[in-house]
Amino acid sequence: MTKFYISTMKQRLLATLVIAAFYLLPLMAQEHISSPNGKIQLSVGLKSGRPYYELKYHDRNIFNTSFLGYKLSDGNLDSDFKIISCTRTTKDETWQQVWGEEEFVKNHYNELTIHLQQKKGLKRKLDIVFRIFDDGIGFRYIIPEQKTLNTIIINEEETQFALAHDAEAWSIPSNHTEYFEGIYRKSLISTKDTVCTPLTIEYEPDIYLSIHEAALNDYASLNLTPRGNTLTSALTPWSNGIKVYGNKNLMSPWRTVIVVQKATDLLLSRIMLNLNDPCKIEDTSWIKPGKYIGIWWSIHKKKNTWEMGPNHGATTANVKRYIDFAARHGFSGILAEGWNPGWGNGEKITYQKSYPDFNIEEVNQYARSKGVRFIGHMESWGNSKLIETEMDSVFRWFHSMDMNTVKTGYVGHKFDGKELSKSQYGIRHYRKVIETAARYHIMINNHEPAMPTGIQRTWPNLMTQEGVRGQEYNAWDKKGGNPPEHTATLPYTRGLAGPTDFTPAIFNFSEVIKGTRPHSTLAKQLAEFVIIYSPLQMAADEIENYEGQPALTFIENCPTTWSQMVVPNGKIGQYITIARKERNGDSWFLGSLTDNKARELDVRLDFLDADKKYTAIIYEDGPEADFETNPMAMSIRQIKVDCNSTLHLKLARSGGAAVQLKVASKL
Amino acid sequence: MTKFYISTMKQRLLATLVIAAFYLLPLMAQEHISSPNGKIQLSVGLKSGRPYYELKYHDRNIFNTSFLGYKLSDGNLDSDFKIISCTRTTKDETWQQVWGEEEFVKNHYNELTIHLQQKKGLKRKLDIVFRIFDDGIGFRYIIPEQKTLNTIIINEEETQFALAHDAEAWSIPSNHTEYFEGIYRKSLISTKDTVCTPLTIEYEPDIYLSIHEAALNDYASLNLTPRGNTLTSALTPWSNGIKVYGNKNLMSPWRTVIVVQKATDLLLSRIMLNLNDPCKIEDTSWIKPGKYIGIWWSIHKKKNTWEMGPNHGATTANVKRYIDFAARHGFSGILAEGWNPGWGNGEKITYQKSYPDFNIEEVNQYARSKGVRFIGHMESWGNSKLIETEMDSVFRWFHSMDMNTVKTGYVGHKFDGKELSKSQYGIRHYRKVIETAARYHIMINNHEPAMPTGIQRTWPNLMTQEGVRGQEYNAWDKKGGNPPEHTATLPYTRGLAGPTDFTPAIFNFSEVIKGTRPHSTLAKQLAEFVIIYSPLQMAADEIENYEGQPALTFIENCPTTWSQMVVPNGKIGQYITIARKERNGDSWFLGSLTDNKARELDVRLDFLDADKKYTAIIYEDGPEADFETNPMAMSIRQIKVDCNSTLHLKLARSGGAAVQLKVASKL
Repeated sequence: MTKFYISTMKQRLLATLVIAAFYLLPLMAQEHISSPNGKIQLSVGLKSGRPYYELKYHDRNIFNTSFLGYKLSDGNLDSDFKIISCTRTTKDETWQQVWGEEEFVKNHYNELTIHLQQKKGLKRKLDIVFRIFDDGIGFRYIIPEQKTLNTIIINEEETQFALAHDAEAWSIPSNHTEYFEGIYRKSLISTKDTVCTPLTIEYEPDIYLSIHEAALNDYASLNLTPRGNTLTSALTPWSNGIKVYGNKNLMSPWRTVIVVQKATDLLLSRIMLNLNDPCKIEDTSWIKPGKYIGIWWSIHKKKNTWEMGPNHGATTANVKRYIDFAARHGFSGILAEGWNPGWGNGEKITYQKSYPDFNIEEVNQYARSKGVRFIGHMESWGNSKLIETEMDSVFRWFHSMDMNTVKTGYVGHKFDGKELSKSQYGIRHYRKVIETAARYHIMINNHEPAMPTGIQRTWPNLMTQEGVRGQEYNAWDKKGGNPPEHTATLPYTRGLAGPTDFTPAIFNFSEVIKGTRPHSTLAKQLAEFVIIYSPLQMAADEIENYEGQPALTFIENCPTTWSQMVVPNGKIGQYITIARKERNGDSWFLGSLTDNKARELDVRLDFLDADKKYTAIIYEDGPEADFETNPMAMSIRQIKVDCNSTLHLKLARSGGAAVQLKVASKL
Repeated sequence: MTKFYISTMKQRLLATLVIAAFYLLPLMAQEHISSPNGKIQLSVGLKSGRPYYELKYHDRNIFNTSFLGYKLSDGNLDSDFKIISCTRTTKDETWQQVWGEEEFVKNHYNELTIHLQQKKGLKRKLDIVFRIFDDGIGFRYIIPEQKTLNTIIINEEETQFALAHDAEAWSIPSNHTEYFEGIYRKSLISTKDTVCTPLTIEYEPDIYLSIHEAALNDYASLNLTPRGNTLTSALTPWSNGIKVYGNKNLMSPWRTVIVVQKATDLLLSRIMLNLNDPCKIEDTSWIKPGKYIGIWWSIHKKKNTWEMGPNHGATTANVKRYIDFAARHGFSGILAEGWNPGWGNGEKITYQKSYPDFNIEEVNQYARSKGVRFIGHMESWGNSKLIETEMDSVFRWFHSMDMNTVKTGYVGHKFDGKELSKSQYGIRHYRKVIETAARYHIMINNHEPAMPTGIQRTWPNLMTQEGVRGQEYNAWDKKGGNPPEHTATLPYTRGLAGPTDFTPAIFNFSEVIKGTRPHSTLAKQLAEFVIIYSPLQMAADEIENYEGQPALTFIENCPTTWSQMVVPNGKIGQYITIARKERNGDSWFLGSLTDNKARELDVRLDFLDADKKYTAIIYEDGPEADFETNPMAMSIRQIKVDCNSTLHLKLARSGGAAVQLKVASKL
């Protein structure tokens, strides 16, 4: 009797709940999705017709209700929506990089796509795709082809990142004329003006975020404008104010948020790469990471000139000296800026003519005879149309001479006097150059670029890019060059966007102009060679300053493509240690550097193979080293270590350490 | 009155003395001659018809009456003499070396020639020429042409060095089958058996001597046999017992004695070079000092073989690897032993055939394309006749391939199965090879040579020679290789005879056979590269062991021809420090090494240019370095110094330090 009673009660209760759920659904439509490890939880839904998402990490709020959508030129695409359907998928794959900081990249995520349609008017459709990884999220908009939409013209993207509370973050201002060559400053988000991405946030002592984008192929670059704790997308406009021109359909770049517990883990996230398309180049055998030297620093130091004259740098004789040095010390490439007429003086730049004192055929032949490649240079002064007109014949010519690398440059405020380089106009240009170069087996080192977004996965001939405040500021910056903390900040900020042609390894710290020189010790310059990743890494100093320096041995041995990396320690803007394992061998290379504070760091070598003994060749600051008074004081020692050892590193003020760990012979 | 008395007394006294002198003269005929600075005094004369000399230094007896002369096959030339006349000359010149430890050599001496004639019998004539320098003496015999002497056949030379007292000396036994590859042992002269020269003597705490010979061109090598404190010449015989065949006249090599106050000054004496004839090669532009590597150590380690087989070292592919390395690291030459058939197995050695796995034209062409020279090798197994028969065509062939260096070798107990290599027979052969090589612009590196006597001044294409217990003993010597003190002894002994192809710079100290490996630290290996002089200096290790070693930078930078040298400190068989200034530049290179005792040495840098600042790059033993337990522990540091600085060097047990001092840039 009692038993029966209880069971019927259960049935009634169940019935009631089902009915309730049925009525509530349309009002509070919400979908949930978590990362594979469950630590990151995303909720997506509509609030009175407006699409939004919310993000939790370890059950703590990261983003409160953050709305999503567009303003198109012929109507809004940000409200009045209903959810038509949702699709979910899961992927767990590992793919191989042609080159990079790691050989194999794990791509494991849960995906949710919500298909939306506006309830009234043109009943336009919008899809939003979310991918949740264990170390962050990515999402993108898809505007599918639909009768009521002939050409897509975006006036604004309205993506929000509504942080649950204010936080310190490192950023450079979204200054459209500086090519991202600013110093990353730490300040409260609420106090910032519009900033570029990556935006790196110290959200809580055990939560670090970095907001950026991936796969920027035919769209405007992302900027973020804070209002209180809420960051809203601010796309880089065309000169007419329009943000993006689409066709009948449109797929936005991915908006990415790295979410990790330690600042050092930011560097290990591969979300950006995973959200780019796989390699589109079939035969990649001609793509060769390497190291290069060049006639460059001497020009920034005003010892040489780009233009022809008594101090012209790029003369046949001088470049041959550099080629000899490159051959002797194992550099694969040699750059010489200013061999082609048209420098500065308003004269139209030319790419296939040489100054009379430079014979490119002779130089190139000499380089080839020594196993070195002469690197082509195409500075456009922002005249991107000129490059697009000439690139086919120039690349064909370079290729016919067996040259395999070109450095492109865009010094000048606007592309073709009109458009911003990081606008959709510029983005389209950059991609055209990369794709054209690929056809001629040319690797690209792009200066004054848009902020990188990982498209080197798709086009691995895009080797490295500037978009950073590099070494040259130490030659002529009236404010005194880059501060000691600069390269202790870059790995956590600009570095997250990909390879950086910072041009490290200055070995002579004489003042260039009063008060200006690299504010660094010699050992720190070596550390930067490991820490600031570039598959084409420049040893930037004049060859005279490398002669006789045992420290050069580290650079000679340090590769530029890797199989693994670890980040044993680091604090944003203060210090960092990175260890990388060479792609084709057993050696590890470790770099450690600090800001203007001297530090002692213990580095556990537990990443070494357990069954091997290693010789550690340690390049470190000498006891008397100091970046201001004695930057050259370096000590190199050699000890035996294994995976149970701990390296005790002493870094001077703005000092560093660089270590090669090679599998040891018996004694 | 008193005045007058005294004066007449004086006159009488004077008269008496004059008369006495007049009568005594024939009985005690003696001539005196001093060094330019007066510190060395030589007396020469006859005692009852026997020519003799006596030597004083700072008025202290070095040699008591030491008789001179010959036993010829047809009579003695050592007694019954009278002095016919004496001639005296003085010379003060400075001459330039084509290459060497110093660019300019001071040649300042007083010369006395005594012309003797026997009073009875055949009345034969003998001249003896003495040259007195500030740092020692040289003398030679001249048997002038004379009716009573048709062909000169020397049964014995009877030159004495009658030390005033016994003393410790460093020597190797005059073992005619060891090619001078012994360990220099310290013992009392009176206890020694017949020894080779140079014989280095710690005569008194402030007097050091070294007895050797100069200009051994067509004569027998000198050995010395002690009887008590008196050393007597013992020439190396022909197989028939004859010592030397002359013609109608004969001029002996110079017998040399360095006489200095400090052991370290022995190294600065240029008596041997000064007593050789000036350069006979007009155009010396093709003579180029340099550094070389080679397939050599790996063979002595039994990892490779000379003969063809699975582990053949001199294969085209392997040699090309070495050429690549040489080109990259600035070595001018590459040696590969065992490319020509005829190794060991009794087969007749050939010089113009190659093993099937080695293509000399291909290798040589490859080397030339990389700016490196392939070094020819002519091992004769003591078959010197074979070399004399083939050398013209072989040298012509090498020259036609633009090769410029040949290593000759004579492993085998006797020349042509019969004569000793250091006999007149061998001496004549060696000189023929050098002169022939000069005609084809070939530089010679001669192994299993006679003890050098400075003829490289006359024939500067004789670059370097073995005649030393070299590195190879560390690979296979059953007694455990060279002891730690070995290279702390060589500079004061074998080194005084000239360039030494010791083949230093082993970077891997793994045991070769049980208990055998270089008993040295890594830093000591670098020090040896400076201290043991050779204008063709080998970096002897396998290239694999140099890869990644910053220590290699020192070797890359260290030249092999110099403008100046100084020896800041040293004790024979214990330690030594040498600093050398590069021939064409401002850099100094300093080496310091010790025996099995760890030491701390202060080195004053007062030899540096007073008006310059220098950067000292110091390669030294690490704190934990020890030649037995941790030979690889090395520390490299960089400091600023000038001529008022003192370097404090810490040398581990059998350790060392190597320092490059380069003119410094501002900071």
